[in-house]
Amino acid sequence: MYTGKHAHLRPLQPAFIMAATGEAVTYRELEARSVYGTEDDAHPGVRVLKDSGRWAIGGRVTALAHPTSGFPAYDLTPAQVRAVKAERQWRTMVGFQTRNPVHRAHEYLQKVALESVDGLLLHPLVGETKSDDILASVRMSCYEELLRGYFPPDRVLLATNPAWMRYAGPKEAVFHAIVRRNYGCTHFIVGRDHAGVGSYYDTYAAHRIFDQYSPGELGIEILRFEHTFYCSACGGMASTRTCPHPADQHKTLSGTAVRKLLAEGKALPEEFTRPEVARVLLDAAKAEATA
Amino acid sequence: MYTGKHAHLRPLQPAFIMAATGEAVTYRELEARSVYGTEDDAHPGVRVLKDSGRWAIGGRVTALAHPTSGFPAYDLTPAQVRAVKAERQWRTMVGFQTRNPVHRAHEYLQKVALESVDGLLLHPLVGETKSDDILASVRMSCYEELLRGYFPPDRVLLATNPAWMRYAGPKEAVFHAIVRRNYGCTHFIVGRDHAGVGSYYDTYAAHRIFDQYSPGELGIEILRFEHTFYCSACGGMASTRTCPHPADQHKTLSGTAVRKLLAEGKALPEEFTRPEVARVLLDAAKAEATA
Repeated sequence: MYTGKHAHLRPLQPAFIMAATGEAVTYRELEARSVYGTEDDAHPGVRVLKDSGRWAIGGRVTALAHPTSGFPAYDLTPAQVRAVKAERQWRTMVGFQTRNPVHRAHEYLQKVALESVDGLLLHPLVGETKSDDILASVRMSCYEELLRGYFPPDRVLLATNPAWMRYAGPKEAVFHAIVRRNYGCTHFIVGRDHAGVGSYYDTYAAHRIFDQYSPGELGIEILRFEHTFYCSACGGMASTRTCPHPADQHKTLSGTAVRKLLAEGKALPEEFTRPEVARVLLDAAKAEATA
Repeated sequence: MYTGKHAHLRPLQPAFIMAATGEAVTYRELEARSVYGTEDDAHPGVRVLKDSGRWAIGGRVTALAHPTSGFPAYDLTPAQVRAVKAERQWRTMVGFQTRNPVHRAHEYLQKVALESVDGLLLHPLVGETKSDDILASVRMSCYEELLRGYFPPDRVLLATNPAWMRYAGPKEAVFHAIVRRNYGCTHFIVGRDHAGVGSYYDTYAAHRIFDQYSPGELGIEILRFEHTFYCSACGGMASTRTCPHPADQHKTLSGTAVRKLLAEGKALPEEFTRPEVARVLLDAAKAEATA
């Protein structure tokens, strides 16, 4: 909530400023380039920026009410998450950002991290996402099923992250990491194409951006993971870092393939998604089809 | 090789010195207590100490020849290992100590580490071990089979560690870590009951001992891992840190059970040992039985 005291009001347009290239650009163009690396209207973050009004407000912010996600049991503030961490005596806690149902590839990354970190903050983003992303309510049921069946309860905390997706790739990975540091995380997982959309960002751009920060500068350690999958030859979960077998042994599914299977009323393969999670997704797809 | 210049010769017995407890003890008793935490003759390290002569030599050491293990292709000096690390551009390298055939539980720890570390130094000890440990030549074949079938070749280096086992538990874990640091490792894996024997040491004493060192003091980061196994309910490898299922879902085998299966000419289960490794062990057991 705007308190007025330190606020600055300035028109975003038609003022021009000098970009690093020497060109005169609008604030909006500069923000698009700096945050998204593109001014392409087809980028969902750029579109939100361009569709927003012509005024920006800066200054001290006082929260008059906490945001609610529709899942009040999981709406924990940073202070509340840090309190749980202290109560459970976790010296270290790894944050996991997600806006998708948790498939086995994600579970594998979380468990690799949990082999050395004390606790996991499963921190799904429940603000606005792309229209083809799966509903937050369905995703929350998936997380509950996964945790119930496959994680030691004393090592995991599920809480909502009341933010909206910007799909800004590497810049958003840094933003996501800083937010999780504020929630008390000591480690943060960045996988392949973190917060990416379309082909705007290189698969591992969100890894390399962290090379720009000196150790300790962000106050959180980044765990950089590569593409993970179930490998038939390994007989288990693996990644491009640990598996030597050809890609035809790897059981992966694109988002499109997942949507197609669900639309046809077919369960997702066990190597890809835990059966309890697949059930939730299938039921949701059926409910949507008959709605 | 003893060069004489700075050497000190002193009789180990019958001289007595004051232990921390105030008792007068022999040097040999003091060494047994300090290194092994026991003076029990049944401990294999204590027995070697007590069976050794009554003189100890200290001073500058000059190596006139490198030790040979019988596996010359793998006998790399610390400088040679560091050169391979540099050539492969590994910024980080994790050391894995072993005196056993590599079962899937060990492979899992190595791969968990490889998800964040650049390279693995698989560094089996090929000096003297207990008489019921498996022959170094058989173990080397197991390592070769495992690496050939299940690891990306550019991420692993197999080299011998020409040392003998002391079975000193936590103290030996620290020694093992320092040795691997000298080989260029930035990380070292310490699992459950590292370098333990019988029930002389608590399962995780070799984890806790590292709490005594300030960060950076040893120059190597310790990855502490717990008991790992194949879990039928997880459908993959897991550990007591990541698996919530009851022990009857966990497929583990004691050393005794492994020896019994091999003596009966039966293959080890796939959940426990890779088939190629099990084959080597079975062939070795058959050859031994007919020898």
